[in-house]
Amino acid sequence: MSDGIEYLPPRVWTWEKPGRGSLGSINRPVAGPTHKAELPVGKHPLQLYSQATPNGQKVAIMLEELRELGHSGARYDAWLIKIGEGEQFGSGFVGINPNSKIPALMDRSAPTPIRIFESGAILVYLAEKFGAFLPEYHPARAETLSWLCWQTGSAPLLGGGFGHFYVYAPNKQEYPIDRYTMEVKRQLDVLDRRLADSDFVAGPSYTIADMAIWPWYGQLVKGCLYGAAEFLSVHQYKNVIRWADQVSARPAVRRGRQINDAPETPGSILHQRHIAAIRLRYRHATEAHRKRQ
Amino acid sequence: MSDGIEYLPPRVWTWEKPGRGSLGSINRPVAGPTHKAELPVGKHPLQLYSQATPNGQKVAIMLEELRELGHSGARYDAWLIKIGEGEQFGSGFVGINPNSKIPALMDRSAPTPIRIFESGAILVYLAEKFGAFLPEYHPARAETLSWLCWQTGSAPLLGGGFGHFYVYAPNKQEYPIDRYTMEVKRQLDVLDRRLADSDFVAGPSYTIADMAIWPWYGQLVKGCLYGAAEFLSVHQYKNVIRWADQVSARPAVRRGRQINDAPETPGSILHQRHIAAIRLRYRHATEAHRKRQ
Repeated sequence: MSDGIEYLPPRVWTWEKPGRGSLGSINRPVAGPTHKAELPVGKHPLQLYSQATPNGQKVAIMLEELRELGHSGARYDAWLIKIGEGEQFGSGFVGINPNSKIPALMDRSAPTPIRIFESGAILVYLAEKFGAFLPEYHPARAETLSWLCWQTGSAPLLGGGFGHFYVYAPNKQEYPIDRYTMEVKRQLDVLDRRLADSDFVAGPSYTIADMAIWPWYGQLVKGCLYGAAEFLSVHQYKNVIRWADQVSARPAVRRGRQINDAPETPGSILHQRHIAAIRLRYRHATEAHRKRQ
Repeated sequence: MSDGIEYLPPRVWTWEKPGRGSLGSINRPVAGPTHKAELPVGKHPLQLYSQATPNGQKVAIMLEELRELGHSGARYDAWLIKIGEGEQFGSGFVGINPNSKIPALMDRSAPTPIRIFESGAILVYLAEKFGAFLPEYHPARAETLSWLCWQTGSAPLLGGGFGHFYVYAPNKQEYPIDRYTMEVKRQLDVLDRRLADSDFVAGPSYTIADMAIWPWYGQLVKGCLYGAAEFLSVHQYKNVIRWADQVSARPAVRRGRQINDAPETPGSILHQRHIAAIRLRYRHATEAHRKRQ
């Protein structure tokens, strides 16, 4: 067979080994809590349990934007959940988000506290609660929701696809890197064409769609994710870069991106920069090794 | 180096070859239309451009549920977009969804027609327009939005991760299959634990969260996606199976899942069953080959 079949999946998959790669040890094929751990609760109406990964940044930016608008009901306590140390598997966190992913939010201003999980849902929840950054009427509302869902459906292939195989996987493999690079470049081109005609992603106004998209694609084109700026030729996406600069100049964005950051923890933005530096050293070392052969 | 570095990514990625795999030829690293093609327009208020993939089924099911409720404003024309033949890259379709993915919807009942893309956004749009299947008040609304976004953020790792490497990739590779299998089983367990306590995903009522999740995870546990029921040991997820049976018995679901189906086209449900049959034949042939060696 010319295709060179190298691996025959078993009839039934079994979990035989701890995961590989730098995030492998926290991946499991089962859900639910691994240990008992209550969450801290502060004095403000909203309790945010999160870390400053791109998904975490979305919600912190929204809360800071609401603070800029003077919404006192949007005051919050931010609690760091160290995902590299498995704190998202504590019983208290799982009670808020059964999916064990940051960010998760509790609104304690209601008679019975309300839980909200998934960053996209939290953005809609806060936008509706405070009447801000999500237009009430169509077509602007439909456009905002469409681009918000574009982000939630696209970024898993950036983070869980490209980022994983380009940075975190134990070995570099051509086919997965090639597959997800092609997709990420397509996504960047979708955005670039949109931002050629539009100040912000959903139209003339800044919305939750920008807050969702900027932490992933805005930081990607500015070289702040995965050390992949040169590899992806991000300079091609001039309209995305223009928009990314515009969004990152906002005071709420500057503050929000740093809330709950934990530089030593995998997933943090500063950690990403660290990983990028490691990657560059690896690349130069490997190229030198090749030249010697 | 004991890790066996097999591939060194270039400094700059370039698109050198047509994509590999059975869906490879339609993947590109750029967006925008590839050809001029106007879309047909029927007489009903809503125009659906789609195919009966899981994402396409979500919206067709919602429209059929609204029909069951007697909403005459939800009448629609369904137009097949053959994604295996690249019809999503026609200029008319790209004008509705710049991301070139099905489903896409035009609401022509408004003075200026409204475009909505991304299945999650379309579900919210229709739910809000007709006041159905998305609770108006919290906590039920927050719970529905959270689980809806859980689906839009999780399924890319099922479809664009597991499904791709288990079925469509040109070669079977252990690491990507193992990675995405672990994640899909974790997702199934998240759902299974939730459905142990709850009739439907977001609570006691059937909502757009069920409509979003059933076409992916409901069909997966019933063996209708990727021929992976045995591999994933789906019989473990008893609560998901109970719920999947309950949802699939609904007349609107039975009708909705078949709208815009095109059995000969990659991505269709019947095509998936065909692929599963091919896979089984491949597996038996390969096992026989191994035994002979």
